[in-house]
Amino acid sequence: MEIFSRPDGRACDELRAVEFIPDFAPNATGSVLSCFGSTRVVCAATLEEKVPGWMKAQGVTGGWITAEYSLLPYSTLTRKPREISKGKQEGRSVEIQRLIGRALRAVVDLQKLPGYTLWIDCDVLQADGGTRTAAITGAYVAARMAVGRLMERGLLKENPFTSSVAAVSVGIFQDREILDLNYLEDKDAAVDANVVMTGCGRFVEVQGAGEESTFSQEQLDRMLALAKKGLSELSTKQQAVLAAE
Amino acid sequence: MEIFSRPDGRACDELRAVEFIPDFAPNATGSVLSCFGSTRVVCAATLEEKVPGWMKAQGVTGGWITAEYSLLPYSTLTRKPREISKGKQEGRSVEIQRLIGRALRAVVDLQKLPGYTLWIDCDVLQADGGTRTAAITGAYVAARMAVGRLMERGLLKENPFTSSVAAVSVGIFQDREILDLNYLEDKDAAVDANVVMTGCGRFVEVQGAGEESTFSQEQLDRMLALAKKGLSELSTKQQAVLAAE
Amino acid sequence: MEIFSRPDGRACDELRAVEFIPDFAPNATGSVLSCFGSTRVVCAATLEEKVPGWMKAQGVTGGWITAEYSLLPYSTLTRKPREISKGKQEGRSVEIQRLIGRALRAVVDLQKLPGYTLWIDCDVLQADGGTRTAAITGAYVAARMAVGRLMERGLLKENPFTSSVAAVSVGIFQDREILDLNYLEDKDAAVDANVVMTGCGRFVEVQGAGEESTFSQEQLDRMLALAKKGLSELSTKQQAVLAAE
Amino acid sequence: MEIFSRPDGRACDELRAVEFIPDFAPNATGSVLSCFGSTRVVCAATLEEKVPGWMKAQGVTGGWITAEYSLLPYSTLTRKPREISKGKQEGRSVEIQRLIGRALRAVVDLQKLPGYTLWIDCDVLQADGGTRTAAITGAYVAARMAVGRLMERGLLKENPFTSSVAAVSVGIFQDREILDLNYLEDKDAAVDANVVMTGCGRFVEVQGAGEESTFSQEQLDRMLALAKKGLSELSTKQQAVLAAE
Amino acid sequence: MEIFSRPDGRACDELRAVEFIPDFAPNATGSVLSCFGSTRVVCAATLEEKVPGWMKAQGVTGGWITAEYSLLPYSTLTRKPREISKGKQEGRSVEIQRLIGRALRAVVDLQKLPGYTLWIDCDVLQADGGTRTAAITGAYVAARMAVGRLMERGLLKENPFTSSVAAVSVGIFQDREILDLNYLEDKDAAVDANVVMTGCGRFVEVQGAGEESTFSQEQLDRMLALAKKGLSELSTKQQAVLAAE
Amino acid sequence: MEIFSRPDGRACDELRAVEFIPDFAPNATGSVLSCFGSTRVVCAATLEEKVPGWMKAQGVTGGWITAEYSLLPYSTLTRKPREISKGKQEGRSVEIQRLIGRALRAVVDLQKLPGYTLWIDCDVLQADGGTRTAAITGAYVAARMAVGRLMERGLLKENPFTSSVAAVSVGIFQDREILDLNYLEDKDAAVDANVVMTGCGRFVEVQGAGEESTFSQEQLDRMLALAKKGLSELSTKQQAVLAAE
Repeated sequence: MEIFSRPDGRACDELRAVEFIPDFAPNATGSVLSCFGSTRVVCAATLEEKVPGWMKAQGVTGGWITAEYSLLPYSTLTRKPREISKGKQEGRSVEIQRLIGRALRAVVDLQKLPGYTLWIDCDVLQADGGTRTAAITGAYVAARMAVGRLMERGLLKENPFTSSVAAVSVGIFQDREILDLNYLEDKDAAVDANVVMTGCGRFVEVQGAGEESTFSQEQLDRMLALAKKGLSELSTKQQAVLAAE
Repeated sequence: MEIFSRPDGRACDELRAVEFIPDFAPNATGSVLSCFGSTRVVCAATLEEKVPGWMKAQGVTGGWITAEYSLLPYSTLTRKPREISKGKQEGRSVEIQRLIGRALRAVVDLQKLPGYTLWIDCDVLQADGGTRTAAITGAYVAARMAVGRLMERGLLKENPFTSSVAAVSVGIFQDREILDLNYLEDKDAAVDANVVMTGCGRFVEVQGAGEESTFSQEQLDRMLALAKKGLSELSTKQQAVLAAE
Repeated sequence: MEIFSRPDGRACDELRAVEFIPDFAPNATGSVLSCFGSTRVVCAATLEEKVPGWMKAQGVTGGWITAEYSLLPYSTLTRKPREISKGKQEGRSVEIQRLIGRALRAVVDLQKLPGYTLWIDCDVLQADGGTRTAAITGAYVAARMAVGRLMERGLLKENPFTSSVAAVSVGIFQDREILDLNYLEDKDAAVDANVVMTGCGRFVEVQGAGEESTFSQEQLDRMLALAKKGLSELSTKQQAVLAAE
Repeated sequence: MEIFSRPDGRACDELRAVEFIPDFAPNATGSVLSCFGSTRVVCAATLEEKVPGWMKAQGVTGGWITAEYSLLPYSTLTRKPREISKGKQEGRSVEIQRLIGRALRAVVDLQKLPGYTLWIDCDVLQADGGTRTAAITGAYVAARMAVGRLMERGLLKENPFTSSVAAVSVGIFQDREILDLNYLEDKDAAVDANVVMTGCGRFVEVQGAGEESTFSQEQLDRMLALAKKGLSELSTKQQAVLAAE
Repeated sequence: MEIFSRPDGRACDELRAVEFIPDFAPNATGSVLSCFGSTRVVCAATLEEKVPGWMKAQGVTGGWITAEYSLLPYSTLTRKPREISKGKQEGRSVEIQRLIGRALRAVVDLQKLPGYTLWIDCDVLQADGGTRTAAITGAYVAARMAVGRLMERGLLKENPFTSSVAAVSVGIFQDREILDLNYLEDKDAAVDANVVMTGCGRFVEVQGAGEESTFSQEQLDRMLALAKKGLSELSTKQQAVLAAE
Repeated sequence: MEIFSRPDGRACDELRAVEFIPDFAPNATGSVLSCFGSTRVVCAATLEEKVPGWMKAQGVTGGWITAEYSLLPYSTLTRKPREISKGKQEGRSVEIQRLIGRALRAVVDLQKLPGYTLWIDCDVLQADGGTRTAAITGAYVAARMAVGRLMERGLLKENPFTSSVAAVSVGIFQDREILDLNYLEDKDAAVDANVVMTGCGRFVEVQGAGEESTFSQEQLDRMLALAKKGLSELSTKQQAVLAAE
């Protein structure tokens, strides 16, 4: 009987060790180091007392949440040149930071952030696959911490969050659907999907893609089922660290 | 009895009028104007006799397909400033052109484009929702035309395409799942998804997102079913225009 | 007796087939596809309800007309990389769009565009020589159409145009002065001149240059005479398409 | 009887005081300060022992001449911000430096600069109208000086110049054609033309334009006649300073 | 008797708590989190197997050390926008990273890094004054760790370091010379100096400046004496953490 | 007995010939060509009637002084490409212009420039070592001239200068401390320092560095003594040219 085993010995439906180290960047309003195995992302939330120019121009009320993402140059196995050295962001960074922003906004009532922008900064300290999902999952924790403190300080009157949000990757590796891919799995996966879900079990975003491969409805269904299992566990871990605040 | 009706009177599972006008840009190797209703996208495929620098640097064999996307300034209802006037592309354009490139590469054996880059240019002449899906669907037609001509001229020995590819949008509008959203529907949709699929009915990419909303598994399933119906019709239309070549 | 013949068989004083296809970009206020033989340029005019910052800063009254020009990447025989990929416009594009703007402003009373900017966008779909002259000639038609519609809608009270404007190229090719050079003629011409003239037969701009050659007063005189003949014909064609509006 | 007088009392066909101060930038191969009245332009010519990338790529033999132009920030009556502070050149500078390059190349046999690029730098120290014509006229002197020295040092075998070149402005000011406009005249001129001519009296470039005005054939003829008179005098002055070398 | 006291109660010649947390960025060859009180800087050293283009062009042998510095957006009390959002580095960052590079190169025999570039990345996680001195002092530790590991792996044959290097700030605050200024002291200091010194007690760099103030020879002498005391202590701490490797 | 001699025969404590040619850029409010031997720097001061955006945003009163520095392309022995050709300033230029700005601000009471920015432009016409010290020393003269004229015109009520300021380089060359290094000395110096001092003999800035070398307290002391001698002479020359105004 053929035995399938993942490079690090995990079961197909098993997350890596997940940890959120709070107040990693003490000058931010809220921050964590979000660890999914060896992937480590600094997630920091900071309030700014103004809204983007386009909101004013278009007369949109309420507030805004925006995210920025970068790979620190020493996060990868070979040094990654800084984007500033070329003067512009890579397409991949742009995509990821837009995804983080949408994920957070999907669980926030922006009317309850009147006149404010909540900045979400995600900088990858160590990259071992799944940096965008560790970023979104940690960003929620950092943002929720920030919101709690801003409510204590009286800067916010109500909690703008309508739910929690987390993200996880799933993929097809050696013809099996697996949960929470590390770098070794990710680079050889035929299909890679990122699933963003609220704590109530509703999808915020589903992005599944095969760069040089394709997938069937059945494979998609199995990946989504794995994702839901992982997201339920991540949601529990988020609540635990926030409860300890 | 409450009657639901779409702004342009279409049924929920009905595509807009779709047309591919061939050789719209005669200096390209292959080109079409891809029309999904009022959305019109120039799709042009051109062969370049070299590969990107990173392929040489990493010793990757075969060829490459890359895409570029822009909204022409007069494509929108209010004039859209050119990206060159700010010196950099918007995040949205970067995301879309990366998606177009991945969609095409998923149905191509890059080893059969040895030493070549196939450039896919998609410029939106008129935008009325679904520009990225009209771009992908038209890009396949333009690229397949180009490949046919390159084989006739002896520049390519074999057809590198392993299947056709098309894309369509689906979404949730006024609590109903609908197919192929136009601009009016798109701007008010709670959820918007783009589905890229091969002519053989396998998923290439699924991207579903709710900017300030979420969706259930059942809603996702209904959206994917609508998409499959639309994609089957688009695939038929692609074959028809290619057969007429 | 030696017989001179142009590559496409035209007489020395003969224009290419000229056509203006109206409403090519329906979201613009006015637009045409301007065709001079195989040269095809999308010309679109759009009104913006504000004036450039420098006008406010300097207290200049009235409105403004500004133009932008680009070669679409598939317009040339070998693919032309987009300017955005280098982050800046080429000198040639900058020169041409400044020329288009000056040409239009020369026949407009800017006081009759109070508080408005009229944007002229010229994108070359197919380049076969003379793209700047096709752009100027088509830009007038697009702008005049736009003005007519803005007057109908009551946005403009008076027609700001004081005359029509058109442009044509002339040059010295194989020691003969010729009218309306195509690409084959242009690349081998010893001298190349562009002449912009009002419908009343007054010069707006004369630009004659020999990159690695020079020319006499007599040659200049003969080129200007050819240009006047061509410009008279172009003016008639402009009036015809505008009359059909 | 109505008396016309120019702001500085010159006759209509009179140049300003013209002077070329040699070796103004001693580290250049050849240099002058080119003075047309209060307009002062540093013109420097420097040889580089390589050709532009496009010449190698296209297999073009010989050498190249390229020019760069800038207004120093203290050259104008109110300080002009440096282009580097915005990260890109203005359209006006791009146009002028392209014109200077073409003017020089028109009187040079590039085959006699094998493998070399001759850089022409023109920086305006004081601007009082006609900076581009002072630049071209001085650039020829600097470049010719440089060529003489390079021949002495054996770096060049033959003189690549086939003729001299100079430039002057003419215009229509208060309904009169005048020669060599200063700033006061230039800003109120209805028509402004720049004429570049060889020492043998052949045109290199004619650029006549009315920003918000137009001109007749007779006016053009009178302007060209004035330009020829001025250019003949400038050519004599160029020869004098070069003879003193 | 008037009592002078520093905001945090330190003596004038007292360093803040200094700590170097090793392997903070495990994918770098060597790394520490360098802590001077609340100032925390990630310092990472990574070897690249090539030298800068100018070394090849100029035929310079040996290797190179180069540094990059950034303030992470959440390091400051109010969020600091990323430099990439403006497309260019601030002058302050450029100055600091050039200083870090010079400091390291002053204690390295570049011939013993043949064909290599040692990249030093310094990213500030928390800023409370003295980020450049914490960066230099930590950078030496990270680089020395990296060198030890590269020698173990046989990539380097010899230790290129000729000495250790550290840096500290001194300044004049409320008319007293003080050591190792925190942010509160730094922003009100009349004079601020940074001193870089080898472990052997020789100066590498002395930079003393008063933005809107000046200082006497005696004040400079007292500041340098304080710096030497602090640098001797920092050198001892560097050796301790390196000995524990 | 071994005889040390400097390349140009000067004594170790001897300045080069120093001259300030006034009104070199007549359109500036004040200007000089600052000559230290063959090093020639255009220094121009111009008043702008507004303050930087950050002053308004932070509610800072008074005025500002800011400096810009560039090497003209023909100032160096081999042509130096313009910074605009790469779209950004070099680190070296940024450092130098920040130093010039700080030096001037240190001797100015910014409250006496209410609502104004004094721009200091320094462009190097010929570079032979010490361009930044010639720039600072000349910038003071230009700025002081400008201030005198602005007081005459009634634009400034009081002289904002509290002292004069000058700068000089010192270094260690062939194991000797020398004053005012030219290019030949500078490129082989083990240590290079720039000292900025007021006319009253107080330090404004001391920057001493050894790129691949280090220095002792005694060497620093000897360099500072040389600098003071030179700065005293420079101050006398500054007063002389200003007295002649």
